[in-house]
Amino acid sequence: YSHSTHMSFSRGANTLKVSAKLFAENRARLVAALKGVAPGSVVLLQGGVEKNRYNTDAEDLPFRQESYFFWTFGVHESDFFGAVDVDSGKSCLFPPTLDPSYAIWDGKINDESFFKNKYEVDDVHFHNENAISNYLKGLNAKKVLLLKAENSDSGNVLEPPTFPGKESFDVDVNKLYPVMAELRVFKTDKELEVMRYASKIASEAHRAAMKAVRAGLYEYQMESIFRHASYYHGGCRHLAYTCIAASGCNGSILHYGHANAPNEKEIRDGDMCLFDMGPEYNCYASDITTSFPANGKFTDKQKVVYNAVLEANRAVFKAAKPGVRWTDMHLLSEKVILRHLQKAGLVTGDIDEMVNARLGAVFMPHGLGHFIGLDVHDCGGYLGDALPRSQLPGLKSLRTTRTLKERMVITIEPGCYFIDTLLDAAFNDPKLAKFMVKAEIDKYRGQGGVRIEDDVVIWEKGNENLSDLPRTVEEIEHFMSSEEFSDSTIQKSIRDHLNKH
Amino acid sequence: YSHSTHMSFSRGANTLKVSAKLFAENRARLVAALKGVAPGSVVLLQGGVEKNRYNTDAEDLPFRQESYFFWTFGVHESDFFGAVDVDSGKSCLFPPTLDPSYAIWDGKINDESFFKNKYEVDDVHFHNENAISNYLKGLNAKKVLLLKAENSDSGNVLEPPTFPGKESFDVDVNKLYPVMAELRVFKTDKELEVMRYASKIASEAHRAAMKAVRAGLYEYQMESIFRHASYYHGGCRHLAYTCIAASGCNGSILHYGHANAPNEKEIRDGDMCLFDMGPEYNCYASDITTSFPANGKFTDKQKVVYNAVLEANRAVFKAAKPGVRWTDMHLLSEKVILRHLQKAGLVTGDIDEMVNARLGAVFMPHGLGHFIGLDVHDCGGYLGDALPRSQLPGLKSLRTTRTLKERMVITIEPGCYFIDTLLDAAFNDPKLAKFMVKAEIDKYRGQGGVRIEDDVVIWEKGNENLSDLPRTVEEIEHFMSSEEFSDSTIQKSIRDHLNKH
Repeated sequence: YSHSTHMSFSRGANTLKVSAKLFAENRARLVAALKGVAPGSVVLLQGGVEKNRYNTDAEDLPFRQESYFFWTFGVHESDFFGAVDVDSGKSCLFPPTLDPSYAIWDGKINDESFFKNKYEVDDVHFHNENAISNYLKGLNAKKVLLLKAENSDSGNVLEPPTFPGKESFDVDVNKLYPVMAELRVFKTDKELEVMRYASKIASEAHRAAMKAVRAGLYEYQMESIFRHASYYHGGCRHLAYTCIAASGCNGSILHYGHANAPNEKEIRDGDMCLFDMGPEYNCYASDITTSFPANGKFTDKQKVVYNAVLEANRAVFKAAKPGVRWTDMHLLSEKVILRHLQKAGLVTGDIDEMVNARLGAVFMPHGLGHFIGLDVHDCGGYLGDALPRSQLPGLKSLRTTRTLKERMVITIEPGCYFIDTLLDAAFNDPKLAKFMVKAEIDKYRGQGGVRIEDDVVIWEKGNENLSDLPRTVEEIEHFMSSEEFSDSTIQKSIRDHLNKH
Repeated sequence: YSHSTHMSFSRGANTLKVSAKLFAENRARLVAALKGVAPGSVVLLQGGVEKNRYNTDAEDLPFRQESYFFWTFGVHESDFFGAVDVDSGKSCLFPPTLDPSYAIWDGKINDESFFKNKYEVDDVHFHNENAISNYLKGLNAKKVLLLKAENSDSGNVLEPPTFPGKESFDVDVNKLYPVMAELRVFKTDKELEVMRYASKIASEAHRAAMKAVRAGLYEYQMESIFRHASYYHGGCRHLAYTCIAASGCNGSILHYGHANAPNEKEIRDGDMCLFDMGPEYNCYASDITTSFPANGKFTDKQKVVYNAVLEANRAVFKAAKPGVRWTDMHLLSEKVILRHLQKAGLVTGDIDEMVNARLGAVFMPHGLGHFIGLDVHDCGGYLGDALPRSQLPGLKSLRTTRTLKERMVITIEPGCYFIDTLLDAAFNDPKLAKFMVKAEIDKYRGQGGVRIEDDVVIWEKGNENLSDLPRTVEEIEHFMSSEEFSDSTIQKSIRDHLNKH
């Protein structure tokens, strides 16, 4: 197996090369951030463990590294540990000790120097009974910092690792999480380069799906086209999340596409498509949503909804400067959408009163966007200067309430949906019903929804949109009717991107 | 969300429709098998639980049902329980009680009658604090049979479920496993129909990869083509296992393709390809391996190895009749391969002596094949009249040692590889080295390996090969050089298959 020792990750000629220096820089940031917090400490992290499907002997999906560990070491292989000494900044990886039969079934058994070169760490010791505790003793570790990371969206906890000899060290499981999560919120130039590439691949794969769609095909076939374009042309084996390839009424199911609603509908003439799909490259996520008519031509009603959401997307992109609170951007997007719905006669009254009554959440029940990085819903949304999670409709779904700063990467994804259960409840609530023109709204029922989602880097000089797609009604109609699109179009576009950056 | 109530699984027009009767029949078989073993008992099974990637709020891969539960109920959704009353044969499903917000995020909340119709069970009760224990009490259950299933390949255990009120019942965790595993070994006509379709899709996807391959492409691009063809044309969202898309020397890594060896090599002119890939449809697996030269033309050395393996594959297909022990088929395949290597001058001496010295395992260290069904390595390999797992090279890797019977579905996958660590060890072992012609064998080093794998149903009247691929040197060279192959070729071939069966 000719897995050449390389200092970088790549999937060959036409894909992005990622330097191991990306992770060396992350470790340097970690050490700098911990110097004051925990001098004399050693960070010990555990990578992901390979798991089989239920009780079988085969995995469901190729192993994907745990994100905190990956951020620190860039290691793609399973069953590693890693350490970083806060005082010296030195790092060490502990790869698993493999059974000799690995060479027959799984590939070459590499030595310690292979991993030292590949991941540019200071030391490598194969993990065995005493490797970690010997290393920690060698450093005379006063404190061992372990990661216990709660996810502020799911509440799920990544439990701190155990290792042989742990009981003989003074461990801390609280200091590391807020520091690491906060560092992950702000992306380095090297991380942004990977995220630009992931979004570029997502954009090209979305174009491929837009060009392939037609009535009579099934939603899952569009998912398949997207996955194939991402992997074949971009080297992206993993998706950042389950593909939402919704058409028609399914566009109003916000997380459509999961096992119980598996993109199985036939696409029909007149359907709007809402495709929310993104691959990851070198574990960095993309997350892009396109909305467009399956037949390539917007109806008037589709235009009303689409333009409402597009203006909201663009207004937020412009307004989301450093220093602005994300909650306010959410409210801005609601206002823009409600103004469009008012103009089209679906709602009536004062916009600010509507917003205060939370009418916006009837049409956009989800949050405006979320941090994105190694996880599609990235960590840190409720750290820093975040306000506590709201209890109000729409606002309670925000995955962050923080003030924006440079180098945050966040999705801007306003949407407008016609969800029966929400509309029915609103019509029965006098505080909301008084703004709603039932006869007009009912005309839109069943047509699903529109979401326009970009991945955006916040910059003082003006934000950077990582997505690259036809977005206006005119652009979309032109793109879908024009003929020029093929594998070589995609490949040239990716090559151009790689040459430019 | 227009998830119509249907009595069957399908992915639309050009895919196989699967009736809920498949699972009703499985339940009837289960009840019949348990009548003597456990009268007065109720079977209670737990389906798979949806899990996120690490501590995040997103799943890695769309949920895939646990196989024993799926065999019994055909339920694709997560977080179900299900019961079967042994005396009456009546069945009940316990779907999860969903939060009303599910309707906004995930889709329509169906009522009990929806699931009753869809899965053709006698009762449906949403799972809550008392649903299961009330149901069991209503049946006056004397014994509750729970599944504790050990996997004889991995040793992993599926733990028996817990449920509220469990402590007030007399439970048994031993009776169910051998009965269910044994039933799963023998496939019904309805199951075989699904397996025929899965293998047909696998075959078409392999053809697509064979036609697309060329020097300069990367192995993972072939994986992508395979995945796309399986999903786009066949409706197969899940793979039965991680794709092995090996080229050149990587063909000698038996389980190549996993995260640490992720199909990342560039394919070169002169490489043999070894593609071991199979999708699943409605959770039924396929598992097919093709071996062919990347440039479409076998060299003489490649022919030697290929023809050795092909003759072994065909000899076993012919000899593997009901009543024959699988272990003997393994030894037969070794003999055929060694005979070819002897003719080509790589080994010398008496074939039976070579087999007794376990020389066959130097060239084929894995088992000849395994049961296949809802799991790619299906259960039951060491039940029935199985001999205990051997300690000898090659034979110890057999996933079954049973005597063949009608309706077993088993892979026939002989292989011949040039694995440096095994060859080096053999040259240093006088008991093996005496048969080995080093100068000749060394000429083959680095060229990887060949495996030819079919999915086969054992029948008294002659076995049925579910795979449908060009297999001889001539067939492969002709197929790869002929021009006619496109999306419509695949679609027509699948349509023909559906019409025929």
